[in-house]
Amino acid sequence: MDKAQEKAERILAGEVRVAARLMRDLDDGVPEAREVLKLLYPRSGKAHVIGITGSPGVGKSTLTDRLIQHLRETGKTVGVVAVDPTSPFSGGAILGDRIRMQRHALDEGVFIRSLATRGHFGGLTASARAIITVLDAMGKDYILVETVGVGQDEVEIAAAAYTTLVVTVPGLGDDIQALKAGLLEVADLLVVNKADKDGAERTYQDLLLMLDLRTIKTPGTWQPRVYQTSAKENQGITELMEGIRAHQEFLHQDGGRALATTRAERLRQEFLELLKEGVFSRLVEQITQSGRLEAIVQDILARRSDPYSAVETVVAAALGKSEV
Amino acid sequence: MDKAQEKAERILAGEVRVAARLMRDLDDGVPEAREVLKLLYPRSGKAHVIGITGSPGVGKSTLTDRLIQHLRETGKTVGVVAVDPTSPFSGGAILGDRIRMQRHALDEGVFIRSLATRGHFGGLTASARAIITVLDAMGKDYILVETVGVGQDEVEIAAAAYTTLVVTVPGLGDDIQALKAGLLEVADLLVVNKADKDGAERTYQDLLLMLDLRTIKTPGTWQPRVYQTSAKENQGITELMEGIRAHQEFLHQDGGRALATTRAERLRQEFLELLKEGVFSRLVEQITQSGRLEAIVQDILARRSDPYSAVETVVAAALGKSEV
Repeated sequence: MDKAQEKAERILAGEVRVAARLMRDLDDGVPEAREVLKLLYPRSGKAHVIGITGSPGVGKSTLTDRLIQHLRETGKTVGVVAVDPTSPFSGGAILGDRIRMQRHALDEGVFIRSLATRGHFGGLTASARAIITVLDAMGKDYILVETVGVGQDEVEIAAAAYTTLVVTVPGLGDDIQALKAGLLEVADLLVVNKADKDGAERTYQDLLLMLDLRTIKTPGTWQPRVYQTSAKENQGITELMEGIRAHQEFLHQDGGRALATTRAERLRQEFLELLKEGVFSRLVEQITQSGRLEAIVQDILARRSDPYSAVETVVAAALGKSEV
Repeated sequence: MDKAQEKAERILAGEVRVAARLMRDLDDGVPEAREVLKLLYPRSGKAHVIGITGSPGVGKSTLTDRLIQHLRETGKTVGVVAVDPTSPFSGGAILGDRIRMQRHALDEGVFIRSLATRGHFGGLTASARAIITVLDAMGKDYILVETVGVGQDEVEIAAAAYTTLVVTVPGLGDDIQALKAGLLEVADLLVVNKADKDGAERTYQDLLLMLDLRTIKTPGTWQPRVYQTSAKENQGITELMEGIRAHQEFLHQDGGRALATTRAERLRQEFLELLKEGVFSRLVEQITQSGRLEAIVQDILARRSDPYSAVETVVAAALGKSEV
């Protein structure tokens, strides 16, 4: 058995440390790590992935914490991917709020992984997906993906889940109204957190109205629902979990037709994103080694060429004889 | 003269409507628009590009507005690119704060363009850069690029400027401390806005200390500076502009060696980003037409393959006979 296969076996057997090490190696761009991922992939696809997104400060971490607690109480195992790119250049994962989740650290049924930077994997989305694959292969029943709902990458990660929760709070500014409008389109469930605060009922009614105005009620499609929670006080969590299960059941009904469609879509997206990074990094390698990259940069700097024409020339030369 | 050339000429002659139309066409992916951009490119490279970034709510738009006003008073022409992706799925540009800038709308020396989505150009960064090229070719002396400092794309856009301003305010939460730490690395100038608020002096001192701790004072490199402003009250703007000019002079000293390095770096980045989109979209076209994409998705869904192996196979087939 080669090394990659041995690692895959150990992860599938539940060795948490080997899994944690693999995730680090994936981020660091260790080539062998990707081989392990290939072996794990066929064993993934069973977990229910839940995306949790919303502006900074709406209490996503506390809500995630409550969902973990609730799922654990019903005997489910949970994986968590917390995507926090608010420190795009600092390199390390930021703890901060995560620390609150640490009470689950000794629970073997919970595995939490923070992701702060793109790493070497090619994109935050690719990194997040790789971690989801590992957690899924490890046999976690639920995988919670928590992302800050600002920035396209972050929203896309949450939207790539099977069930997407968009979290908001009463009384956010105008600025956030716009955000909400954008996030609305990816929400399967909307959560008004901090529902003990003033204006919660109004925010709740506003969201209901917005949904009512913009949703086309096609039979057989999912109608987004709105929930009120107070994660800090552990209120509304049971109801929200029922909503999550209702969406999960919706995906599984009729022999799982909706789920199959969702899966195929997500997968196509995942493949294409990996392809983008893959073809690009290989091409950059080629033009760096041949010295062509430097020549192009010099040409453009001297205004003898422009980046748009240069790209066309390189792409034509690169793919002109491709066999795909 | 062909149509693209005619448009380029009209934009270079200062026809604002033709320029505005081109920007829309670029976003809509009109092929001819890119031809116009190619023609404009050799005429760009003269403007000084200033990035302005920071968390939502720190007053970036008001500050930008004041900088426009100040630059206009000294007879400079100004282009503004406001990148607001907080509505990733809504499609249209969000006005909101922008409206405040509308008082410049009748000033021919100012051109403001909002950018809310990726459009068809391939990436928010690519779209922003294309607009900068147009504004630059139009002869604007200064181009201000305002972005929300959350999300990697947004930070990168601001960091791609020649002079990058990172804006903060007194008394932001922990969450934002982390952000600040990340943004610190891209800042040429740090701005404590809303300096009339409690805690401004402390934030100012904190930033000075942070800079002092982490900056390696290599002779001949730029030492980031910290400024206090109250954009709303129009205070501290003159001093900040002096800081911007000092950085500009730094870039131009010794025959512009620092500027040349910065330019070459930015350009390499720009070319590579365009190349990434270019090679990817062409490859996707090829594998979609040949039916290979669908076959791959089905194979992975059936767990006969995995996305990582599939990407390797496609990339090898695509670039195996490339001539670059």
